[in-house]
Amino acid sequence: MPVSEFDLIRQYFAHATASRDDVLIGIGDDCALLQPAAGEALAVSIDTLVEGRHFAVDADPAALGHKALAVNLSDLAAMGASPAWATLALTLPAADTLWIEAFMRGFSTLAGVHRVQLVGGDTTRGPRTITVQVHGFVAAAEALRRDAGRPGDRLLVSGSLGDAALALRLEAQGRPVDTALRERLDRPQPRIALGRLLAGRARAAIDVSDGLTADLRHICEASGVGALLDLARLPLSTPVAAVAAKGDWAAALAGGDDYELLFSVDPAKVGELCSACIAAGHAVTEIGRLVDTPGIRLIYPDGRLSEDIPDGFDHFRS
Amino acid sequence: MPVSEFDLIRQYFAHATASRDDVLIGIGDDCALLQPAAGEALAVSIDTLVEGRHFAVDADPAALGHKALAVNLSDLAAMGASPAWATLALTLPAADTLWIEAFMRGFSTLAGVHRVQLVGGDTTRGPRTITVQVHGFVAAAEALRRDAGRPGDRLLVSGSLGDAALALRLEAQGRPVDTALRERLDRPQPRIALGRLLAGRARAAIDVSDGLTADLRHICEASGVGALLDLARLPLSTPVAAVAAKGDWAAALAGGDDYELLFSVDPAKVGELCSACIAAGHAVTEIGRLVDTPGIRLIYPDGRLSEDIPDGFDHFRS
Repeated sequence: MPVSEFDLIRQYFAHATASRDDVLIGIGDDCALLQPAAGEALAVSIDTLVEGRHFAVDADPAALGHKALAVNLSDLAAMGASPAWATLALTLPAADTLWIEAFMRGFSTLAGVHRVQLVGGDTTRGPRTITVQVHGFVAAAEALRRDAGRPGDRLLVSGSLGDAALALRLEAQGRPVDTALRERLDRPQPRIALGRLLAGRARAAIDVSDGLTADLRHICEASGVGALLDLARLPLSTPVAAVAAKGDWAAALAGGDDYELLFSVDPAKVGELCSACIAAGHAVTEIGRLVDTPGIRLIYPDGRLSEDIPDGFDHFRS
Repeated sequence: MPVSEFDLIRQYFAHATASRDDVLIGIGDDCALLQPAAGEALAVSIDTLVEGRHFAVDADPAALGHKALAVNLSDLAAMGASPAWATLALTLPAADTLWIEAFMRGFSTLAGVHRVQLVGGDTTRGPRTITVQVHGFVAAAEALRRDAGRPGDRLLVSGSLGDAALALRLEAQGRPVDTALRERLDRPQPRIALGRLLAGRARAAIDVSDGLTADLRHICEASGVGALLDLARLPLSTPVAAVAAKGDWAAALAGGDDYELLFSVDPAKVGELCSACIAAGHAVTEIGRLVDTPGIRLIYPDGRLSEDIPDGFDHFRS
């Protein structure tokens, strides 16, 4: 390995992202030293992407850099937190500087959008694996939790569902993939601003990473409730709506990798919250409600009620 | 995979470690929600261990669980920080519950000693890779930095040097390894209490993970100084002293994996600090000093002065 661990870190990590006043020591000491926001709680999330499982061997490194940070920022969004810092543990088969440059370009561009500073890094040699931890702040009383849903709450979701899953399926079938769909798979946009708006206003929230029904189940189990989902109301892009119209709801319901926010709202506050979302330019759609009876029931557009959830796409699991 | 990611996390991570009052939400939501210590800075460090590089395929999982946390806690010790929380990203080829149980036993036992709570986890399928991030607190003005060394400072080190490296070498040669040496390799003890004592009293500090001279070089480069090392004063165990007596200083000087603290102290404060260390039961030894002239010079026991640093052991690098 011509370039040592330390050279790598210095060259590509140390000045990769914008600098923040609350970073007392960044990369280069035994620890980063950080000044937490006074009076707020610290929200942290860690996620790993593994080559061959979460991304292909020939995946575009810039898109990977974006996605590795985006999936973590999405977790901060789901807590209603404001992002601050990130750490990056990168395991690579070789010190491929072109790959690292491109990866850091994707990572840093997204970090800049959300004012995130990379404060710690570790590079090791081995099978390509990317672990990112993000750190953000939210007032403890306003944090969006999975366990705060109540029967009667309206269920809403941001953006559209199933795009990334459909892109992945088309690709696996060797069929052409629309650029917009492709972008939804490669460059998910964490809903940070929406999360901040929902903090203290919504009840339960989660980001849709495993698929709508899988993530809704997490809310239901944590909150001790059930849910009714009105499939006719799901926000679907034209290509996903086209496959759903043929009776294939797997992408929309169980596709995963959407990185939209699924949240529940006190019915008395839905109107006001939707108005605030519209005013701020966030697309949100009411898609069902939480109920006393455990389990998830689907109301199909033809009125049929079902508890059978279509199988997911396993590519992006665990 | 019979056990899903979520089952794994719930079973083995959720109640793995002692609970702390400053953890508002632990494992099970999109993020952990944590209450930072008021008025203190947050110190964080992230490190990855890769199978085949940092540990053998047949490594004892309990020892690995200990070590994965220990090497990170050692970074907190080197900042003078008090540990609080950890996150764990575990990539495993299969959901081997016996392996995970043993790993978490090693991890949790050490976490209990230092009152560390595991607050976030991610499990993914892939080549075995262990990433741990630790979080701790220290008053910003008292944090031990690499760049705070000054010419004239005395250099001290805790414990003994080269034991882990010698154990590894003997093992690679198929020779018997003394239990005490083996423990130094498998179960390094992070010098947290010593780091707390040094905070606000020592100047520069680093933990010896890459090897004494490599880590001393980090202090020298960050502080813009050089160093004189008096080899006759190095604290060595009987087996390491025996190989050094034959002229082989590689284990002691460049072995790495010691996880002792190397620190510099204002010469006017050395006596008082050493007394405090003795009173608290910490073994520390003065081994040299920082000087104006850049570079590291070794004074051999026979009085010979050299700038040639013995080659390191590359097994545990990057």
